[in-house]
Amino acid sequence: MSCGGETFFRSRWVQAPDGTTELDPDGLAPGFEAAGVACGLKGGGAIDLGIVRATTDAVSSALLLTRNAAAAAPVRLCREVCDPGSIRAAVVNSGNANAATGEQGYRDAAAMQTVTADALGIQAKEVAVAETGTIGVRLPLAEVLEGVSAVAGALAPGSAQSFSEAIMTTDRGPKRCTVSVGGVTLSAQAKGAGMIEPGYATMLCFVQTDAAILDPEPELRAAVSGSFERITVDGQMSTNDTVLLQATGEAHEQLPPGLLAAVLKQLALEIVADGEGASRVGRILVSGARDDLEAERVARAIANSPLVKTALYGRDPNWGRVAQAAGMALAGEEVAELGPDRIEAGELAGETAEPEIGLRLDRGGGEAHVFFSDLTEAYVQLNAEYTT
Amino acid sequence: MSCGGETFFRSRWVQAPDGTTELDPDGLAPGFEAAGVACGLKGGGAIDLGIVRATTDAVSSALLLTRNAAAAAPVRLCREVCDPGSIRAAVVNSGNANAATGEQGYRDAAAMQTVTADALGIQAKEVAVAETGTIGVRLPLAEVLEGVSAVAGALAPGSAQSFSEAIMTTDRGPKRCTVSVGGVTLSAQAKGAGMIEPGYATMLCFVQTDAAILDPEPELRAAVSGSFERITVDGQMSTNDTVLLQATGEAHEQLPPGLLAAVLKQLALEIVADGEGASRVGRILVSGARDDLEAERVARAIANSPLVKTALYGRDPNWGRVAQAAGMALAGEEVAELGPDRIEAGELAGETAEPEIGLRLDRGGGEAHVFFSDLTEAYVQLNAEYTT
Repeated sequence: MSCGGETFFRSRWVQAPDGTTELDPDGLAPGFEAAGVACGLKGGGAIDLGIVRATTDAVSSALLLTRNAAAAAPVRLCREVCDPGSIRAAVVNSGNANAATGEQGYRDAAAMQTVTADALGIQAKEVAVAETGTIGVRLPLAEVLEGVSAVAGALAPGSAQSFSEAIMTTDRGPKRCTVSVGGVTLSAQAKGAGMIEPGYATMLCFVQTDAAILDPEPELRAAVSGSFERITVDGQMSTNDTVLLQATGEAHEQLPPGLLAAVLKQLALEIVADGEGASRVGRILVSGARDDLEAERVARAIANSPLVKTALYGRDPNWGRVAQAAGMALAGEEVAELGPDRIEAGELAGETAEPEIGLRLDRGGGEAHVFFSDLTEAYVQLNAEYTT
Repeated sequence: MSCGGETFFRSRWVQAPDGTTELDPDGLAPGFEAAGVACGLKGGGAIDLGIVRATTDAVSSALLLTRNAAAAAPVRLCREVCDPGSIRAAVVNSGNANAATGEQGYRDAAAMQTVTADALGIQAKEVAVAETGTIGVRLPLAEVLEGVSAVAGALAPGSAQSFSEAIMTTDRGPKRCTVSVGGVTLSAQAKGAGMIEPGYATMLCFVQTDAAILDPEPELRAAVSGSFERITVDGQMSTNDTVLLQATGEAHEQLPPGLLAAVLKQLALEIVADGEGASRVGRILVSGARDDLEAERVARAIANSPLVKTALYGRDPNWGRVAQAAGMALAGEEVAELGPDRIEAGELAGETAEPEIGLRLDRGGGEAHVFFSDLTEAYVQLNAEYTT
């Protein structure tokens, strides 16, 4: 799932800016350091705790967090304590989501933040905390804080390899890339495979660049809205979704238009392709809705329909299921006949790697698309296993 | 799935009125006739076309139809032509839903209605048409109309056996019952296994009684709201859902309170238990929501979460997934911690036949419950098969 050895921008749905060069996927933008260590959360010596930080004083950043009302402790902490525009470092663990852990969980996340800030010599509000893994189990705090000290001492420029491993849970492999264009470098590390349906963000993603970004929050929001908010694996919004963008501006160049969007879109597609048990990725494009919101509602109903998802898996060009799901999203309304002349589902059949489904309504100019994975026996097996 | 040989009201969730007696499940309330024949829609000589009708002149009835915006031709026909309070007969086929079939589909359904009315000597507006099966394929009209003549000639009192077979699709067996209490008899036949998530109704169900029902529409609506609107298999609202209640009043007794509700609830539970690939049925009960609507939204998000459904299958008391789904339904709101003290998920584990999950919010007095089936490999296999 990393871009090592193959072209990173390999989907027909992603267009990188002209002149974009792919660097070592483990690379890290200049001005950043990262590391990951094993602190025992995942067991078996797996790397499960990481830090990424900017080494410069002036960082402009943006932080997007899940809207789930059962948001995890680190998300609530970031909301209440962090200065989202000046995040200098992120401390992240996998293996434990620290969600539904009450006040104790909040205090544990706050301790991670404080100890990280102290170790790096910065303020707590400059440290974002992100966690992912099992819900409802208290963090083994002593081990984690020991790990924070270890990882803070191991920070090094040049490579995000161990950091991108530290954020993985059920991912088949790390999702990361480093690209350069127009004199700037952008690196990104993401994770996500299940519980994927966006609110703002939809998983963990950390992006670093030496480019200048004047107003990172709307820039990140726009890129997320075209990427992580366009994907669904199981229609489930996570309690821990977090996306962090950090820019040092040290390259004295602006971020080229479209670069952030292209990288996040490719990473989002890798998350769908790595969806739990997934064997195929489809795209549903709805046009002619009353407005974009209505188009999105219809597209999402189709993308999350288990009947459409099993049709994607079974290579069944079953346009009737597309019509039914669209009709459900528009329940109670008057809609022109949703017949085969309005639905293109042929690519569901055959060997097409990235099948497209099209639905043309006749109600207005609204459009939306959603990428989605199929529903397979392997998804059921993975999730029916005893995990509590 | 019929009540033959075993107790019909066998769920801990259903309470029949005192003194209710179960009759032959194939039975039919006095004053009604039914029959089913094979007209070739399902192939292999399977019975696929049926009629049920009241033999008396004065019938009071109620008809509830799907709200899916891609409603099938027979649903649109019923809406436009039928007099819902005076339905004397229903003609039903399985094997073809006559949905997404355009104007031709509408004309075909109208022909079924007209030919049935003529054969029975009643008016078209007194004949409800219901169809279920494959979407998007035109009905073989000549065969169907020939079948209508055959089935009209075969109508007989006393048994609904062939009629209840005529309405089956992927059902493992017929769902039907006949009960008596307080001097009246009520018989009902239902079908449904997939594409189950209610709008008004959620499958096909036909109910006959010789009791008097003054105002059948609100009575039926209330019973449906506690039964077919409380179940979900795959969260998919069908294009063809239809529930018909017919009452002759010839017994000169009112329908005993609770009887209709109990029968429809038991049939609804049989539909969930017969959900495609289903191995277990659970009930989620949400309390303490702002209002009943909010409680319903949360309960449905939990019941339709593939993560909760696989936990039901895997006997995993995974309350964290319940918290996550509830948090998603309440996204963007302030909610008190959704911790283990608020969620009862223990019955998911072990051999409990009808496990209960409880979620207590702390926002008001709103309550709702939803019955749901689990998600299994068999569901995926059934629905991934090429069907178009």
